[in-house]
Amino acid sequence: MSYGEIFLWEMMGTAVLTLLGCGVTANVTLRRSLGHEGGWLLVSFGWGFAVFAGASIAGPTDAHINPAVTLGLAVEGSTPWDQVPTYIIAQMVGAAIGAGLCWAVYKLQFDTHDDPAGTRGIFATGPTVPNKPWNLVTEIIATFVLVFWVIQSPEAGPGDTPGIPEFGNSALGYAAVAFVVIGIGASLGGPTGYAINPARDLGPRVAYALLPIRGKGSAEWGYSWVPLLGPALGGILAGALTLVLPAT
Amino acid sequence: MSYGEIFLWEMMGTAVLTLLGCGVTANVTLRRSLGHEGGWLLVSFGWGFAVFAGASIAGPTDAHINPAVTLGLAVEGSTPWDQVPTYIIAQMVGAAIGAGLCWAVYKLQFDTHDDPAGTRGIFATGPTVPNKPWNLVTEIIATFVLVFWVIQSPEAGPGDTPGIPEFGNSALGYAAVAFVVIGIGASLGGPTGYAINPARDLGPRVAYALLPIRGKGSAEWGYSWVPLLGPALGGILAGALTLVLPAT
Amino acid sequence: MSYGEIFLWEMMGTAVLTLLGCGVTANVTLRRSLGHEGGWLLVSFGWGFAVFAGASIAGPTDAHINPAVTLGLAVEGSTPWDQVPTYIIAQMVGAAIGAGLCWAVYKLQFDTHDDPAGTRGIFATGPTVPNKPWNLVTEIIATFVLVFWVIQSPEAGPGDTPGIPEFGNSALGYAAVAFVVIGIGASLGGPTGYAINPARDLGPRVAYALLPIRGKGSAEWGYSWVPLLGPALGGILAGALTLVLPAT
Amino acid sequence: MSYGEIFLWEMMGTAVLTLLGCGVTANVTLRRSLGHEGGWLLVSFGWGFAVFAGASIAGPTDAHINPAVTLGLAVEGSTPWDQVPTYIIAQMVGAAIGAGLCWAVYKLQFDTHDDPAGTRGIFATGPTVPNKPWNLVTEIIATFVLVFWVIQSPEAGPGDTPGIPEFGNSALGYAAVAFVVIGIGASLGGPTGYAINPARDLGPRVAYALLPIRGKGSAEWGYSWVPLLGPALGGILAGALTLVLPAT
Repeated sequence: MSYGEIFLWEMMGTAVLTLLGCGVTANVTLRRSLGHEGGWLLVSFGWGFAVFAGASIAGPTDAHINPAVTLGLAVEGSTPWDQVPTYIIAQMVGAAIGAGLCWAVYKLQFDTHDDPAGTRGIFATGPTVPNKPWNLVTEIIATFVLVFWVIQSPEAGPGDTPGIPEFGNSALGYAAVAFVVIGIGASLGGPTGYAINPARDLGPRVAYALLPIRGKGSAEWGYSWVPLLGPALGGILAGALTLVLPAT
Repeated sequence: MSYGEIFLWEMMGTAVLTLLGCGVTANVTLRRSLGHEGGWLLVSFGWGFAVFAGASIAGPTDAHINPAVTLGLAVEGSTPWDQVPTYIIAQMVGAAIGAGLCWAVYKLQFDTHDDPAGTRGIFATGPTVPNKPWNLVTEIIATFVLVFWVIQSPEAGPGDTPGIPEFGNSALGYAAVAFVVIGIGASLGGPTGYAINPARDLGPRVAYALLPIRGKGSAEWGYSWVPLLGPALGGILAGALTLVLPAT
Repeated sequence: MSYGEIFLWEMMGTAVLTLLGCGVTANVTLRRSLGHEGGWLLVSFGWGFAVFAGASIAGPTDAHINPAVTLGLAVEGSTPWDQVPTYIIAQMVGAAIGAGLCWAVYKLQFDTHDDPAGTRGIFATGPTVPNKPWNLVTEIIATFVLVFWVIQSPEAGPGDTPGIPEFGNSALGYAAVAFVVIGIGASLGGPTGYAINPARDLGPRVAYALLPIRGKGSAEWGYSWVPLLGPALGGILAGALTLVLPAT
Repeated sequence: MSYGEIFLWEMMGTAVLTLLGCGVTANVTLRRSLGHEGGWLLVSFGWGFAVFAGASIAGPTDAHINPAVTLGLAVEGSTPWDQVPTYIIAQMVGAAIGAGLCWAVYKLQFDTHDDPAGTRGIFATGPTVPNKPWNLVTEIIATFVLVFWVIQSPEAGPGDTPGIPEFGNSALGYAAVAFVVIGIGASLGGPTGYAINPARDLGPRVAYALLPIRGKGSAEWGYSWVPLLGPALGGILAGALTLVLPAT
């Protein structure tokens, strides 16, 4: 797989991830949207099936669409380190593009929203109780579960179907990842909005800062390093733990 | 596959799609219905599993049940152009029949509804903020995601199971499509009610105009070209992009 | 398969179906229950996964657990007519046993419910707008979709995995049936509570009439023939239509 | 499989189970959490996908992660009795660790909750109507369904994919278990909060008693034997019934 192909598929897969993912948060947040106040399960399923769709499209490059997964797999040894920068840059670029498309989909709802300064949460995560060390703990643990599951699930690597290696890159493997992401959102998303993916947070945050959103508020850069560092540490920790566990 | 067989299975599959799909919007809208005000996740799952059921039934004809999918696959080269008119006409006829059956299922609830003039939304989509160019953008992007996923998912074509080609036309492939449709509904359905399928909108709109629904309102023909043109363009765009992407 | 084995597995599978299915309606109805007022999507998923669990257990007998399915498959030719009475009696007996177990699970919640006379709906279905001919239409159409899907899905018979015949009796096939049942509940369950299964309605109705439920109301026998006849006709119609369709 | 490996994988799998499972109850309970009052379907899906994630990780040891499953499989003959103590101790230890991690994830939300004495329900189950004999009946029946399904499903053993034996330990089998657990939660969880797993209840209850949770209330040890004995009896009953049923 060439660097160009890695860039292409990871960028497109991550763009679909944030287009659908930021879409569901827009849908529940914006007043003139049909899913307004649709509840946390709607958000959890929205992001989970966003992972399903995005991962399917990034199947040719093993469906990372998340720098924390890329780092975990590099530490664990599945992904060559020389590919890591290409993966991560593609994910960041794709995440920003997807967020921009999400804004286009909801342009009229942004224009008619009654709290335009409070729209940052549609794009980037934030804590309900600000306290950076503990917010970091939340993101580390939640991301550790995701990446440890990806690595330890019967077949390593998100592009493989867990337990059905001969089927490789399949709908079943993406459904399995989606179920885990829905579970993490439902269960561990309450304190910080579960970034669990540095690209999913930074790409849309940059998009929010750049897009001409009517009456928009702050992108809250002061918090932005938490959903970068926490997921990165969680992914690296999952990869490192795998190195010391016995083979299965 | 003969034109007659294409017509038969696509008509029946699309009829099941709109019977169940319009059914869930009837269920959440009508006051004397058990699912009244059941929320957007109920709507998203209702339409998603409507696609699951309808696609299964149209399996012999590769389960298009959507002119946007047919157009995208024709542009991309999987579906012969001479079959396209039969597919689309069958989908339109089936969609209208399914909507008629939905009315029969909910006849008593229509008769006792307290806002009969507001029942168009049970059949055909409409924008929460009317602005045809931006409504068109929403439908183009949402449909692009669907059709691009169908084409780019590990195995091309909605009748194949993504990633498990040897299983062909299977429950797993239909579940995958359903998950993507649930995700698009949850995430991108907020502004316009996500037609993402010209037949799903026009067939029921015609049915609404023709059916003897007590106190019914306008079919809002002025908007009707948006959910035709937007999904058609989104599907064609997805097919065209595939032609310029490298093979996977 | 002997008559005794058919009786055993169908009885147990249908008991699990109504234990879980009546369980979810008890959960949303009874005031001292944790799922009180949990919404229609909870009901739809509860009954859908009740079908998943019950069908898995009745796998050895092809997982009918529904007289409408048995009748449809008999008309279509998959199930020998001499087995039909055993199937249906087992389903009826099992459905009553499951409803009795549901009452035991929720005994304390029945004892402390503030509207004991309104508990029939936990066991047996009823219309929101009583009108027997139209209620019958609703049940016929909803059951037709279920049984037609079962027969027309890539591989005929509820015990087969649609599209993956070599896997036979598998979790994937039961998940597919569950998704269709969730879809029918979400979409067509609004007017009558979707019996779509004569045993699911009659068995629990008999149990309701016999069980020592504190302050219970009428079993509403006047309506009881609708959820028997409607699903039976829907299933027979689906089997008959299959006979005149071309092979796929 | 050595005792050490059994301990390792079962401990980690059960830790993920209670981390995610207690996480969803924290999310719906705590005021400053994004999923606050998210409803019973959110709880059901949260615990169901917690089982999915935890079972995947405990795949090498057949994914018991529940002493009731271990006991049922030992009675039925699949699990050697000498392994039973290791399985159960690992599950208990893992369940307590997972609950501790859940507290760390929600530390700030516990600190700012307005009813700190009422947080026991986040960790351990309790009845809505206290009556130990009937609460026991509820737990016995609910656990019986789970373990009977695990044993009777097409292929015995939770590590096998029901119906697809050649795939062994796969995502499909875990999804099937998750669907059954979601169904049991939706349907039978209303009276007691569905422990259906002695480790899932005792481990987090011990953690609750030990953790420095601000203003915490009683761990309610008087009830604690019900969710131990009930699920154990339900599992044993399911294993015993299997011994007298005909082979399938």
